[in-house]
Amino acid sequence: MSLKPTTPKGTRDFSSEVLFKRNYLKMILQKAFESFAFEPLETPSFERLSTLMGKYGDEGDRLIFKILNSGDKLKKVDLNSLENNDLKEFSNSLSEKALRYDLTVPFARYVAGNQNDLIFPFRRYQIQNVWRADRPQHGRFQEFCQCDADIVGDRSLWQEIEMISLYDRVFSDIKLQGVKVKINHRKILEGIVRLIGNDDQLIDFTVAVDKIDKIGFTGVENELISKGFTAGSIKKIKPIINLKGSLDKMLLDLESLFKDIPEGLKGINELRFIFNKINKLELKSLNISFDLTLARGLNYYTGMIIEVDGPSNVKMGSIGGGGRYDNLTSSFGMKNVSGIGISFGFDRLYLILDELNLFPSKIEIKTKILFLNLGINVSDIAFSSLNKLRSRGVICEIYPSDIKMSKQLNYANKKNISFVVIIGDEEVKNEKFTLKNMISGKQNKYPLDDMIRILERLPNI
Amino acid sequence: MSLKPTTPKGTRDFSSEVLFKRNYLKMILQKAFESFAFEPLETPSFERLSTLMGKYGDEGDRLIFKILNSGDKLKKVDLNSLENNDLKEFSNSLSEKALRYDLTVPFARYVAGNQNDLIFPFRRYQIQNVWRADRPQHGRFQEFCQCDADIVGDRSLWQEIEMISLYDRVFSDIKLQGVKVKINHRKILEGIVRLIGNDDQLIDFTVAVDKIDKIGFTGVENELISKGFTAGSIKKIKPIINLKGSLDKMLLDLESLFKDIPEGLKGINELRFIFNKINKLELKSLNISFDLTLARGLNYYTGMIIEVDGPSNVKMGSIGGGGRYDNLTSSFGMKNVSGIGISFGFDRLYLILDELNLFPSKIEIKTKILFLNLGINVSDIAFSSLNKLRSRGVICEIYPSDIKMSKQLNYANKKNISFVVIIGDEEVKNEKFTLKNMISGKQNKYPLDDMIRILERLPNI
Repeated sequence: MSLKPTTPKGTRDFSSEVLFKRNYLKMILQKAFESFAFEPLETPSFERLSTLMGKYGDEGDRLIFKILNSGDKLKKVDLNSLENNDLKEFSNSLSEKALRYDLTVPFARYVAGNQNDLIFPFRRYQIQNVWRADRPQHGRFQEFCQCDADIVGDRSLWQEIEMISLYDRVFSDIKLQGVKVKINHRKILEGIVRLIGNDDQLIDFTVAVDKIDKIGFTGVENELISKGFTAGSIKKIKPIINLKGSLDKMLLDLESLFKDIPEGLKGINELRFIFNKINKLELKSLNISFDLTLARGLNYYTGMIIEVDGPSNVKMGSIGGGGRYDNLTSSFGMKNVSGIGISFGFDRLYLILDELNLFPSKIEIKTKILFLNLGINVSDIAFSSLNKLRSRGVICEIYPSDIKMSKQLNYANKKNISFVVIIGDEEVKNEKFTLKNMISGKQNKYPLDDMIRILERLPNI
Repeated sequence: MSLKPTTPKGTRDFSSEVLFKRNYLKMILQKAFESFAFEPLETPSFERLSTLMGKYGDEGDRLIFKILNSGDKLKKVDLNSLENNDLKEFSNSLSEKALRYDLTVPFARYVAGNQNDLIFPFRRYQIQNVWRADRPQHGRFQEFCQCDADIVGDRSLWQEIEMISLYDRVFSDIKLQGVKVKINHRKILEGIVRLIGNDDQLIDFTVAVDKIDKIGFTGVENELISKGFTAGSIKKIKPIINLKGSLDKMLLDLESLFKDIPEGLKGINELRFIFNKINKLELKSLNISFDLTLARGLNYYTGMIIEVDGPSNVKMGSIGGGGRYDNLTSSFGMKNVSGIGISFGFDRLYLILDELNLFPSKIEIKTKILFLNLGINVSDIAFSSLNKLRSRGVICEIYPSDIKMSKQLNYANKKNISFVVIIGDEEVKNEKFTLKNMISGKQNKYPLDDMIRILERLPNI
């Protein structure tokens, strides 16, 4: 029985046609990161299980792909946990390594491990795959590419401005209009839980509010009730979350609510600085708004948080996000290091550019010249030219077998090859070669001696 | 307790310094592949377990990294196999996916799955990581990068010449001299087992002979004895393997030995064609030899086989290899498709180039201009220039906080930044900026109005 030649669910093969577009997008991101003085970093595809577990919340833990131990280590399996139906413990006893779930935790691990050699503030970018055992759907894969930029080692709010500029630069470069950026501040969310008297439940609050786009305010209410928020607390939330008006008015309203809550006031002051500076930047592609319901599920954020949605005419969900964190490296023994990071959802960006036809034409790299194969003696001549042309940057190939000429021409047509070189017995006798333009169908004879010179100057058609 | 910030054994973080070199090498390979008309392909990091198992021999199977099932699938674990100490069966009951072990099997799976859409002969290259649970040592990692080029769908021996040309092109481009290429033919090895009367034991024979460099002829003898080869058979092998003289003489000697063995004669004829054409190619970097002991462990080869070793002055083992195969896709239901593939050992090539100082200087991408941060008002001016310069391709940054100037200059020095721009209160008053050359130490004042124009034209120093 033969095997089914398919990939596991949620994964994809990338053909050349797709890769040329992916590489175009990757190149734009890379150039932008580099011109913003971010240095590249790559970390291994798998990390120690202990490095990853517990960093992404319970749901994240469940979605981490673990690598099965091999050999005698398998005998250390904890069968009691299986009997007790504790599958988490059971799987932890079978694994010591896991696939990268995001780029942030490996980055924190790298910074902590290399703190004596790095120059701070340290700016790095990273474009690598991550893996999540998520149910696949449109725009969501089990293997996908993330692109992150982070600066660690300084608290200056100028860096928030830098990150927003970077988003604007990338979206301008890929000519994507109407990108929506929502901004909020974790200290403002902290102010709200204090205000309603649930000081210790910031995480429950942010996890619930984070879903408001999907489940509506009623859904959030229900979740908060299930987490023990009182009806009285919840009643206080709605008017805050529904604050309306200009940015200045909203910040003023919040300021008066937070008059006795220093965390909340700090958040407001920071956002004021950030919005003030952003207004001077003349952004090209972003529509920025203050969104009090933006929470970002991840617990490590402590300052400004940001989320990016594609233009309204495509349905894709978030295409980027990030924020400031103050304790990311502390679990690796490096305390009090503030940083800020943003991420681009590469695969979703790809889908949007494809849907909106924003990939430039002519980004594919393809064979320009096919030498027909008309028998062993004449192939010698063709073959000796191939490598010379290739060294000069001309993409060319020879048809490997001397099958019927019509079949060879058919291959050239199907592969969209612009020029065909024909050297048959007659050509050899007259010391000529025939050059056929496959677009126009025209063909001419030229002296064999001039072949390299002529072929390396052929236009791109 | 804080976590140890280290990577799993056999894996590595790549800092920017290393990545600039890796990217240089990758770019050379990519350009070479593309100019030889190979199309890029990328396959998922993990495949169905059934796609990979049984393709790489028993040792390969053991070295495959399996991904642990999650959730309720874990309950399907086969505890009997654990009791019976059948760890292979036990681990197979816990896993349905596994990390890519090489690029060849995923390629075969891709070709079979897309046979109706591909244009044959299909030329693809693939540069991606593979993972092996091997004991790490110098030049051997658990995660490493492979670079493969394959052509499938045609039997023409011109493709053997193409592949050898491609090796020559890459090694010339990276300026690596003294690369040794050993060539043999599986049909000649087949001829030998027929000659000695062990027709059915080609695989045992090739697996043993493949180790001759490591264990010597006596080691090979012992292994063959353990596989049931008779003393009489083994006695016949030695004089064949020790055949000496010119290529022509060796092939003639073999020809007379194989006079009644058509497979052997076919191998000889193919090698004659190949060596004849290679001689006309004027190779720049390769020293090619016929090596009767070259076997290539992998069972799927059926024609010419090839292995590449680095120059004698570095100890690194094989840096590439490949060969022709006739049945690679048959396990995926696509029969009788001949192909040829070669591989470059990226990580070993990197180590060799590094050891021999063959990486060009100035391949790093780094900050050219640092704007000092001398307080919020003057930072506004600096900040508004940053993004303009970046859009014009100038890599620049501003120091995020207004700490002491000496510390900011120290940052510029440590990061090897060429120029520093100083805009302090005095500069603002006089509408000037100060430009300091960090190499020469010289500094000058220029009009603020001219800043962008001047800064975007600064030389690379």
